[in-house]
Amino acid sequence: MKRIFSTLALLFLAVTVAPPIARSQTPSPPLVSPEVHPDNSVTFHFRAPNAKEVAVQIEGSAKPVPMQKGDQGVWSITTDPLTPDYYGYSFVADGVGLLDPSNYRVKPNFLYRANEVHLPGPALSWEISDVPHGEIHHHFYKSAVVGDHRDFFVYTPPGYDPRSKQTYPVLYLLHGYSDDASGWTAVGRANVILDNLIAQSKAKPMLVVMPLGYGEPKVLEPHSGVFHDPAITQRNFDKFREALLTEVIPKVEAAYLVKKDRNSRAIAGLSMGGSESLLTGLNTLEQFSWIGAFSSGGFNPEFDKEFPALDAKINQQLHLLWIACGTDDQLIENNRNLRAWLASKSVKHADIETPGAHTWMVWRRNLTEFAALLFR
Amino acid sequence: MKRIFSTLALLFLAVTVAPPIARSQTPSPPLVSPEVHPDNSVTFHFRAPNAKEVAVQIEGSAKPVPMQKGDQGVWSITTDPLTPDYYGYSFVADGVGLLDPSNYRVKPNFLYRANEVHLPGPALSWEISDVPHGEIHHHFYKSAVVGDHRDFFVYTPPGYDPRSKQTYPVLYLLHGYSDDASGWTAVGRANVILDNLIAQSKAKPMLVVMPLGYGEPKVLEPHSGVFHDPAITQRNFDKFREALLTEVIPKVEAAYLVKKDRNSRAIAGLSMGGSESLLTGLNTLEQFSWIGAFSSGGFNPEFDKEFPALDAKINQQLHLLWIACGTDDQLIENNRNLRAWLASKSVKHADIETPGAHTWMVWRRNLTEFAALLFR
Repeated sequence: MKRIFSTLALLFLAVTVAPPIARSQTPSPPLVSPEVHPDNSVTFHFRAPNAKEVAVQIEGSAKPVPMQKGDQGVWSITTDPLTPDYYGYSFVADGVGLLDPSNYRVKPNFLYRANEVHLPGPALSWEISDVPHGEIHHHFYKSAVVGDHRDFFVYTPPGYDPRSKQTYPVLYLLHGYSDDASGWTAVGRANVILDNLIAQSKAKPMLVVMPLGYGEPKVLEPHSGVFHDPAITQRNFDKFREALLTEVIPKVEAAYLVKKDRNSRAIAGLSMGGSESLLTGLNTLEQFSWIGAFSSGGFNPEFDKEFPALDAKINQQLHLLWIACGTDDQLIENNRNLRAWLASKSVKHADIETPGAHTWMVWRRNLTEFAALLFR
Repeated sequence: MKRIFSTLALLFLAVTVAPPIARSQTPSPPLVSPEVHPDNSVTFHFRAPNAKEVAVQIEGSAKPVPMQKGDQGVWSITTDPLTPDYYGYSFVADGVGLLDPSNYRVKPNFLYRANEVHLPGPALSWEISDVPHGEIHHHFYKSAVVGDHRDFFVYTPPGYDPRSKQTYPVLYLLHGYSDDASGWTAVGRANVILDNLIAQSKAKPMLVVMPLGYGEPKVLEPHSGVFHDPAITQRNFDKFREALLTEVIPKVEAAYLVKKDRNSRAIAGLSMGGSESLLTGLNTLEQFSWIGAFSSGGFNPEFDKEFPALDAKINQQLHLLWIACGTDDQLIENNRNLRAWLASKSVKHADIETPGAHTWMVWRRNLTEFAALLFR
């Protein structure tokens, strides 16, 4: 038996030596980073023997926190105790943002690189628990509207049976600028949140559809200065809306057991996706009657042009218009302005201000609260 | 209109400034890396102003290639023209393996950090093309066998309709050591390969089930020296097999329209997953009749103990035993020894030697060839 295992060990050694990094790292002992301590403080470690300055930037902190250089070129810092959550972070070494090579948790994102550290908290909605789990379905198609190959994700709740006759309402849930279509599940834990809410009877069983949120992929090009190009910005919103209404929704409604009336369709999103939810939802009331915008912005001061038909009549049609923003978010003023304008039009809406900045910690809580209100 | 767009620009600016890295990167212009040139050479760039030595390690190359320092602390190198494919790579700066902060393509992996560069080639099986696409379903469950929360993925072919009566054969496809359950889709492009093969009538429509391949998660702990711990190694194989046979297969067969006889079940995998395919498949012939091992190893020289019942009688039962390895793979000798032992037992099998090392470039080609042979 011993010989089997020593050849197995050789196999594993061969395998572990084969990947690129392992081969070059042999001289230095591997680091464990991040380390979460019992008091919920976190120690980060990063080896950079010749760097002059290293810091860690943690999601929700205003500024990078300097790290101290110790033995063997390893920089370290321990935080104060943190509230249990998932936090994005990255290192900044001599001005260059870098991922933590000791951490396999990497946030999917087209533009920004960040790892994630998990501080578990037992009763939190985004913690995996011993409840029935839904499934996530990944769909691929060629978009005639945008002209690219793209994808969307569909969460089906526990017990969803395509061979049954039961039908479900649908939440269309939109990611933010720079995210990909997996953002709401991979980072937002939308599937875990829905699993937990449904198990506790805090949310109705529903499908959650998470499309790719770009109508004009050029909006992602870092060198084109497109954020200042009004044509590309407008096209991004317009083509997104068209792709959602004429491609994604018909595909979902053909493939899944869903209710197809406006009372059973919600649309919500974060940041750019919040703007898309307002632009699409409030201008397509024949399709949606539940609308949520988390940390959205960018409409002030010409709301009259973006929502030309909006007035108090909408109160008869809309079940929920839920507008949330963190008070430390740079977009809080935009949100206050939007809500004041809605009030001036006598449009009913929920004014939600929460602690927090422009972060996933805010948006996971937003989804938890918003999903519980839907389809009642 | 101008004012709308300038506030939208502010929104985007606010959003782009919010993520951790962007805030600290403002002084340096963003890099574009990697750059793929028309002749299929690739230029890599990495900013590391105080590093003394920077290299790039490219999947399939024996050694890291040194990079040269240019303006503003940016290190660069241009490769020779490469064969179209997806290549993993990482940087090594002063002995530390690092991800490319300019590239959003990061390979999911529990132990090794690598980015990916894509050199498109029009007729390649793993290139997305204008053919009908299947779907990928992500399942979550608590394993009673292993005791953890875990996941598996299921590819359903184009046209799969859960409300029909048509049933399909199933390939159980296993990842390698250090991969997670998404490895075969995210890196191996198994769904794209199957889409293309099916569209060209080169493979039968089938489901592909991709479970998490660890029976003992401790096998992943970097500090425990478990590769030399025979008990943990053996437990990893045994509990994987038990979880597959008693948890994953029953769940798949309850949820999907699949054929449930051994003639309609295949098992294959790469590296550790190849070993698992042999250990499970050859010892559970009542369940599987198609077996593939890509770059597997670790059984020499005590094959008699691992496969005690194996003899020429198996030739009546087994439709395919397909054993492949790249000639530059460190495991090629193990594979040759295994094949010689099978020949000594008069067990029919396919001897496949291909160019290449222990890389995904080999395994994508292995899957393309192997899937075409199944269920005929």
